[in-house]
Amino acid sequence: MAMPKGSQYFPRSEYLRRLAAVKVEMERREIDVLLVTAPANITYLSGYTSKSSYVPQGLIVSLKDEEPTFITRRMDAPAAIHQMFVDRSRIFGYPEALIANPDRNGWDAVMDLLLESGLQRARIGIEADSLHGRTVDKFKIGAPEAQFIDIGNTISWIRGVKSDLECTAMREAAVIADAAMLRAKEVIIPGAREADAAAEITATLIRGANGKAGTDLASLYLCATPRTSTCHIPWTEEVFQQGSQVNLELAGVRHGYTSALMRTFSLGKPSDRVRRLHEGEVAGLEAALAAVKPGATCGDVATAFNTTLRKYGFEKESRCGYAMGINWAEPTASLKVGDPTILKPNMTFHLMLGNWIDEDLGYALSETFRVTESGVETFSTLPRDIFEI
Amino acid sequence: MAMPKGSQYFPRSEYLRRLAAVKVEMERREIDVLLVTAPANITYLSGYTSKSSYVPQGLIVSLKDEEPTFITRRMDAPAAIHQMFVDRSRIFGYPEALIANPDRNGWDAVMDLLLESGLQRARIGIEADSLHGRTVDKFKIGAPEAQFIDIGNTISWIRGVKSDLECTAMREAAVIADAAMLRAKEVIIPGAREADAAAEITATLIRGANGKAGTDLASLYLCATPRTSTCHIPWTEEVFQQGSQVNLELAGVRHGYTSALMRTFSLGKPSDRVRRLHEGEVAGLEAALAAVKPGATCGDVATAFNTTLRKYGFEKESRCGYAMGINWAEPTASLKVGDPTILKPNMTFHLMLGNWIDEDLGYALSETFRVTESGVETFSTLPRDIFEI
Repeated sequence: MAMPKGSQYFPRSEYLRRLAAVKVEMERREIDVLLVTAPANITYLSGYTSKSSYVPQGLIVSLKDEEPTFITRRMDAPAAIHQMFVDRSRIFGYPEALIANPDRNGWDAVMDLLLESGLQRARIGIEADSLHGRTVDKFKIGAPEAQFIDIGNTISWIRGVKSDLECTAMREAAVIADAAMLRAKEVIIPGAREADAAAEITATLIRGANGKAGTDLASLYLCATPRTSTCHIPWTEEVFQQGSQVNLELAGVRHGYTSALMRTFSLGKPSDRVRRLHEGEVAGLEAALAAVKPGATCGDVATAFNTTLRKYGFEKESRCGYAMGINWAEPTASLKVGDPTILKPNMTFHLMLGNWIDEDLGYALSETFRVTESGVETFSTLPRDIFEI
Repeated sequence: MAMPKGSQYFPRSEYLRRLAAVKVEMERREIDVLLVTAPANITYLSGYTSKSSYVPQGLIVSLKDEEPTFITRRMDAPAAIHQMFVDRSRIFGYPEALIANPDRNGWDAVMDLLLESGLQRARIGIEADSLHGRTVDKFKIGAPEAQFIDIGNTISWIRGVKSDLECTAMREAAVIADAAMLRAKEVIIPGAREADAAAEITATLIRGANGKAGTDLASLYLCATPRTSTCHIPWTEEVFQQGSQVNLELAGVRHGYTSALMRTFSLGKPSDRVRRLHEGEVAGLEAALAAVKPGATCGDVATAFNTTLRKYGFEKESRCGYAMGINWAEPTASLKVGDPTILKPNMTFHLMLGNWIDEDLGYALSETFRVTESGVETFSTLPRDIFEI
């Protein structure tokens, strides 16, 4: 019995719109066929979110075809049939014999499928950043008369400007992030184990909010005293102490789309130093958001933040954020001094103001936002406070 | 104020033992210094589990030094100070200016640190599988007189035989996996939303069992009717129906060490076809485990499974499992017909008998096991049943 297609979050027209934008770039560069291998770009162009990027796989976009073609490990192909908007006839699974096989792997099967349609002399686009050098070499040896053109981050840049439907997904994800942060306020208490708090926060991220579940888990970082200068430790088995600080970074996920949120918790009154840093960061955040409007650059936003924070006697060494969408960060625009990216309506960013200044001074604050026609929309509705427990 | 070292799960002697094994290989290949970049191998040799492998970083093992040296993004260095067994003076953070910088990135800083100690003409070991080709090119241009030797999976192979302490970590992880699977039996009920069940299962994986928390989350796959032919979908927003089947794959994690477990759930009586498949799989599992002993090969174990399953009229196309340890699978031995790896005491595997036969016939069953002096130890204590709800 054939498996039914799953319910689609986005309509077919949304995928055709995205594919059309990619095809414009292909035509401009005279690329006949494009092999998409970055997982977030596969999700973008097909709706596929199943976890099979641990094996060779690729989405093939051809100028000749309305729908793309997908090839992955055979055991993962049914998930693609279920999730992708494309017709099932366009999804191929390669044999399991290509797994853990030193002589011939899934990339050989991807290559065979690419060349089947008479593309031996074609101009073939690839995403070299997501491919090992030896895979690219394999392609070149397999099709010596084809030309392989690295399209770099082209699709990620196209993803940068969201549709209204994508913004809706990010708003739904933000509602989940807010719910999880509020749950954190209930479970981060003296005497509780960090892991037990993380369990409750994570459960909320999956249950979701307003009847909309989190469709996946993104990274969760819970960095408590004495680890407030760290930023990427999930949690420990230690117990929260009165007087401790907790820096929390989390995100809601809806069908790949991710909205992140960071807040600082204090079990008791924060120290004067932390409070001063907080005041500078909140003022910087407001200055940064005030700088967001179509026509301004990413660098302008970072400069507004940095200039303001400096007035409070602090510096932030790391960038102030990055483009955000499918699978968290997009590898394109940075909210960083000098970044020339011009803001356009429906670009979305994580204004990430986490600041790890010294071994005993770290702080977390962020907002995920959308550029509007005239300014900015932040997705979270939570106050920009240190959450005192 | 300096941050204190975190409590260490493994004693220093355990890391020195692991490093000694790596150094023997380095001496054999006349490698002066080794740049370790595969995240699981960094964990293995240092205890570092913080999530910073999204940026360039490397653990440098030198024949001259007892302890390795680590370099990562500056904001991630404090986590290394906290988690690694090495002295804090051996941990370096490179400037944030190297992030999202097209001209110079973290690999330049890694290279600079490597070359600082007069290694311009050294034989430098690298793990090319975990490096982009252009990174290797960067190294070769930066040190034209050095020789770069790809050590491939050498460290992963060393990881293959666990110490008793590592086996203890995997047993602790298995206790957590069992607790989560038992929680699944309580929450997978008709009318419940898949996401709500996943939330409860995940929370148990974090809370852990016997007072020992899960120290991280591994992948969770909950593939319910009509998706029982898929294997890597986390969960959906749909509701379990009476008569549905659920294939669940999860794992407990203790300080990087992962023990996986798969079971099939049936809401009501399973179909005759599923029951027959189950009987064949359980018989195959028992035959496979009976084949496990020092001196047998991985291929022998797979052959025992396949031969038995065939007697029940079924085939499994994919391999029967793989070496397991830090961060789930090790990229070395496969339980696959023809794999010549000879089993040794304290090797650990995930005997992964998930079988996705047709679009409406998929099934999940697995055990994580250790090779003992005379046979096999399975870590889970759960029955090998279809869990009927």
